[in-house]
Amino acid sequence: MHIYLACTVRGDRVAVEAARVLCARLEEAGHTVPTKHLLADDADASEAALTARAVYERDMARLERCDVLIAEASGSSYGVGFEVGYVLGRSAATTKRVVLLYKQDREDRISRFIPGITHPRCTTIAYNDPGELAEKVLAVLDDVRS
Amino acid sequence: MHIYLACTVRGDRVAVEAARVLCARLEEAGHTVPTKHLLADDADASEAALTARAVYERDMARLERCDVLIAEASGSSYGVGFEVGYVLGRSAATTKRVVLLYKQDREDRISRFIPGITHPRCTTIAYNDPGELAEKVLAVLDDVRS
Repeated sequence: MHIYLACTVRGDRVAVEAARVLCARLEEAGHTVPTKHLLADDADASEAALTARAVYERDMARLERCDVLIAEASGSSYGVGFEVGYVLGRSAATTKRVVLLYKQDREDRISRFIPGITHPRCTTIAYNDPGELAEKVLAVLDDVRS
Repeated sequence: MHIYLACTVRGDRVAVEAARVLCARLEEAGHTVPTKHLLADDADASEAALTARAVYERDMARLERCDVLIAEASGSSYGVGFEVGYVLGRSAATTKRVVLLYKQDREDRISRFIPGITHPRCTTIAYNDPGELAEKVLAVLDDVRS
C-alpha cells in the first residue's frame, strides 16, 4: 500500500526514532512510504528549499494518493493534526483510513484529541516500544487490506 | 454567527492574549463564542475534569454546530490543526469556513501548513497587533455573511 507516514518537522521530534523503525519495517513488508525524507535529521533545512505553499501543495497531493495515513502524534504538532483531521473529514468521500500513534508516556502532555478520538475510520495505538509498535501497525494494515 | 474559536490548551499559549481580545470584540459585535472558556488561564486544569474522549466528543459536536471556525495557530498545536483539517476536509458537504490566524513573528517556527495553506474555504491572516487582528477578522466575517 501507499502510506503517508506523518511526523512533525518543526515540532517536538521526540518520536522520530520510533517513526524510522516503523518506516523500515513498512518498507520490508512491501509498502511504499513517499514521506520517508521527513524522518531525516535535516528535514527542516531540506524543506526550507521550498516555499511553505509548495510544501503544503506537495503534501496534499501525496495525501490524496495514499491509501493510509499513519500519523505519529507524540510531538502533538499542527501539521500532523491537520493531516489527520483532513483525511477523516473527507473520509465519507474516500476509502482512506488513519492509524494514529503516540508514546504512552506523552499522554498527559499531548492534545486530548489524540487519546480521545473516536472516529470510526481512525485506529489509535498508544505504544511504549518501537518494535512492538511496528508489529501492531502491520497487523492493522493487514486488517485494512483484507 | 456561532463561532468556534480555537486556541491550543496544552501547547504554546503565546497568543492566548490576542485570542482574548478577539473574543471580546466578536461578542461585542453580536457573535456567540461557545469555546470562550478555553482562553482562561486554568483551561488545562478545568478540562482535566473530563476524560479525553468527552473533550473530543464535546468539541466535535460544537464544531458541527458552528458557522465559522476561527483558529489561532501561533502555538502550532495538534488540536487546532485537527480542527482546521477536519472542517476543510468536510467543507464540500457543509457551508463552513475557516479563518486561520498566526502571529507574523512566529512564521519560521510554526508548521508550513499554516502560512502555506491554499484551500479555497480558508482565509489566512498573519498579524502583528491584536487590535488590528480583530478588525481584520470582523471584516472577513462580514464578507462571509453577505
